[in-house]
Amino acid sequence: MFGTVVDWRGSVIREGEEMGRKKDLDVDWAAFADKWRGRYAPSMDRVRRGELPWTNLDALHRASLEELLEEFGVEGLTEEERDHLNKAWHRLDPWPDSVAGLARLKERYVISTFSNGNVALLTNMAKRAGLPWDLILSAELVRHYKPDPETYLMPPNLLDLRPEQVMLVAAHPSDLRAAQTYGLRAAYVLRPLEWGPGGEAEEPDPSFDLVVDDLIELAGKLGV
Amino acid sequence: MFGTVVDWRGSVIREGEEMGRKKDLDVDWAAFADKWRGRYAPSMDRVRRGELPWTNLDALHRASLEELLEEFGVEGLTEEERDHLNKAWHRLDPWPDSVAGLARLKERYVISTFSNGNVALLTNMAKRAGLPWDLILSAELVRHYKPDPETYLMPPNLLDLRPEQVMLVAAHPSDLRAAQTYGLRAAYVLRPLEWGPGGEAEEPDPSFDLVVDDLIELAGKLGV
Repeated sequence: MFGTVVDWRGSVIREGEEMGRKKDLDVDWAAFADKWRGRYAPSMDRVRRGELPWTNLDALHRASLEELLEEFGVEGLTEEERDHLNKAWHRLDPWPDSVAGLARLKERYVISTFSNGNVALLTNMAKRAGLPWDLILSAELVRHYKPDPETYLMPPNLLDLRPEQVMLVAAHPSDLRAAQTYGLRAAYVLRPLEWGPGGEAEEPDPSFDLVVDDLIELAGKLGV
Repeated sequence: MFGTVVDWRGSVIREGEEMGRKKDLDVDWAAFADKWRGRYAPSMDRVRRGELPWTNLDALHRASLEELLEEFGVEGLTEEERDHLNKAWHRLDPWPDSVAGLARLKERYVISTFSNGNVALLTNMAKRAGLPWDLILSAELVRHYKPDPETYLMPPNLLDLRPEQVMLVAAHPSDLRAAQTYGLRAAYVLRPLEWGPGGEAEEPDPSFDLVVDDLIELAGKLGV
């Protein structure tokens, strides 16, 4: 989801700049966005190691936000404004191909989110962006974050499919490699702009079933 | 879902008749459908009382089907045919107003299933019938059947809403009364044909927020 279907970085920067104009803040929002996302994996790892009880992504994002506001010297935000800024992650914009690609895939396949994002975040994001999911699957439903086995086992279990009937589509090789461990198929979407202009996508593994530039190409390769 | 959005009785009869023609069976499929549905609540109650470990609705339907095939003297069905007949519950037809009503409701609201049906059943049914859900919420996700509290608490919890921001829409007063206990709003849809021609809907409680004849009327009353 984050980086694969939506442009989290450009969207968080946009939301930060809006808040900055409203509150007259002098913040490098690109740096802020990158640091916020940088805390994503470490914060989930604290849950995975049992240092924190189950905590959904909205709450992890909020804890990271509080630390970053202090680090960037941002003062004067009300509780409502902090909550609004935190929910920037509910208002991420899709990549230009995402809505059209998903709509095509949906004609033949069941399409679902499969994300560490919590259900409310994924639902609100889909509603705003027009992402036409058949259903919302989230780490929150099994109270485990990727790459815990419970997450990758969930889609085949809940959809009553064999693992090889399920394909993970992701912009992150580590996610795809983990999915393959549990027998799921893997489609790698190259998103060199995930971390901003001038970025590069990681090399695909030779074992990935498909490597595509966007979701429209994916639909074509899957025969839709 | 069953009876509120889709016509389980007419659809199971249709599926039974198809199987009957194929296998040259002499069965009163209306009686078969009614008895199959009659085992629904008792089978879930066995799970709720702890007599059975968590068992999803496909598996409960299948156990009831085996008993009914014996009771009706049906022989000669292969495993594949039994599974196909059991999955009749994945192929229920919507009431004539359902797709249009849900599409209108979706313009303003997040619309979700909220059913004892398992995720695969609800997903396959939506895909076949064109039910445009934003997400699929199921008793299976909390491994408790209605009216266990875990079920009614799930939609506000997962959607990060206060209970009064959530409305249950159902053709069954007992379901609505239970939802109200947990602070959810209640809309009663009169479906006198749920159990066949000549049926009558139960009287609404005065405490229900809305009483409507179908989902198009519901959309209108909710300002869409």
